[in-house]
Amino acid sequence: MPRILHDLACLDDRRPSPYCWRSKYALAHKGLEFEARPQGFLDIPRLYGGAHRTVPILDDDGHLVGDSWAIADYLDARYPDRPRLFEGPAERALCRFTEAWLFGSLVPLLMPMLALDIHDHARPEDRAYFRESREKWLGRSLEAAAAGREERLGDVRAALNPLRLNFTVQGQQYITGDRPGYADYIAAGLLQWVASVATLPLLERDDPVVAWLERVRDLHGGLGRTSPMYAIAA
Amino acid sequence: MPRILHDLACLDDRRPSPYCWRSKYALAHKGLEFEARPQGFLDIPRLYGGAHRTVPILDDDGHLVGDSWAIADYLDARYPDRPRLFEGPAERALCRFTEAWLFGSLVPLLMPMLALDIHDHARPEDRAYFRESREKWLGRSLEAAAAGREERLGDVRAALNPLRLNFTVQGQQYITGDRPGYADYIAAGLLQWVASVATLPLLERDDPVVAWLERVRDLHGGLGRTSPMYAIAA
Repeated sequence: MPRILHDLACLDDRRPSPYCWRSKYALAHKGLEFEARPQGFLDIPRLYGGAHRTVPILDDDGHLVGDSWAIADYLDARYPDRPRLFEGPAERALCRFTEAWLFGSLVPLLMPMLALDIHDHARPEDRAYFRESREKWLGRSLEAAAAGREERLGDVRAALNPLRLNFTVQGQQYITGDRPGYADYIAAGLLQWVASVATLPLLERDDPVVAWLERVRDLHGGLGRTSPMYAIAA
Repeated sequence: MPRILHDLACLDDRRPSPYCWRSKYALAHKGLEFEARPQGFLDIPRLYGGAHRTVPILDDDGHLVGDSWAIADYLDARYPDRPRLFEGPAERALCRFTEAWLFGSLVPLLMPMLALDIHDHARPEDRAYFRESREKWLGRSLEAAAAGREERLGDVRAALNPLRLNFTVQGQQYITGDRPGYADYIAAGLLQWVASVATLPLLERDDPVVAWLERVRDLHGGLGRTSPMYAIAA
């Protein structure tokens, strides 16, 4: 049986899910071949009798694993002789903190700005579900959340200051140092989410964050370029 | 010869330097005894013929090391059989990113709010130097920078969201997971800087960040309580 990573898909085979991106990178980091099988929002609860409510879902020769963290832990445990995702428990914990940084500072800014773009790129049959669930979460219409989003670009760029300083003041090539690691995949996955659907470029072209994202996109045979993307920088 | 960590000192033997705090924690983490010798701002360039312009300076039985990162690397290299500060290069790189997070999001907010408090707690002979160098950096008087600082407490608390989510959503005890690590020492050192001089409590009492700081202060025989501190929470 093949190795399948069930991956969220929008129109034109755009792949927006930040959680799926990190799992695709995790598989590539370990040198494991896989098929990233496209699924719409409403396809997910129909997979494997509704075993998992979200993607990614890894089907590794019949062994099912849901949730990106469980997939990462499974891969290091099942394939210990391949390059490790975590050199030890401290790296794993610091990757969780990296996720907390993104979800505590950047995601609350991005979600209102992007939800309408995600909706507009979702498959037609997924749009009613997406609108209803996200408007409940946002507490307003997708259109109201996106209104005036250009004025919030400065806040988004400021929220990325820590990542920017990582490359400038700290002089690091990747978040994990000289070589890319799971923290890079988490952060790049979030920007891949943005770039897969965002009709408004977020960053400036000479931003060191953009240069880093391009470096990550080049990794593992250009995995980061296997989905249509909008320009992340103006 | 004894092991000496030259440590910035203010009035009442308050120890504000976030860089010295992380080095004191690094020494304690490795189980190495040391004297944290107090030095005023103007004492530093007089030490060892001006070999280093900033503290911490470690004098390890006559072997001199300046700069907190150089000290951490020296300690892991010189004492490899004691508990390591970094399980490998990824943890070290992620600690640098943790520093970038603090200096990219929190420090720019805190410095204007705290500079006058630091000045007022500096030894009288250090105050003119401190005022001149920091007013140049801030581009205004210490008093102007501190004006209306109560109104910026919400921004400071929001900037700590990633650390807060690390304990709530991510369910971690420390930034480094179940056990404290150098990333915790970096972040706690910054809040020790605040607490050593800040006459305005920054956080709310039930903030998970406060509970974590108290956990870190308890470590290594209560090292974090070896300097007079103001309440960090109202």
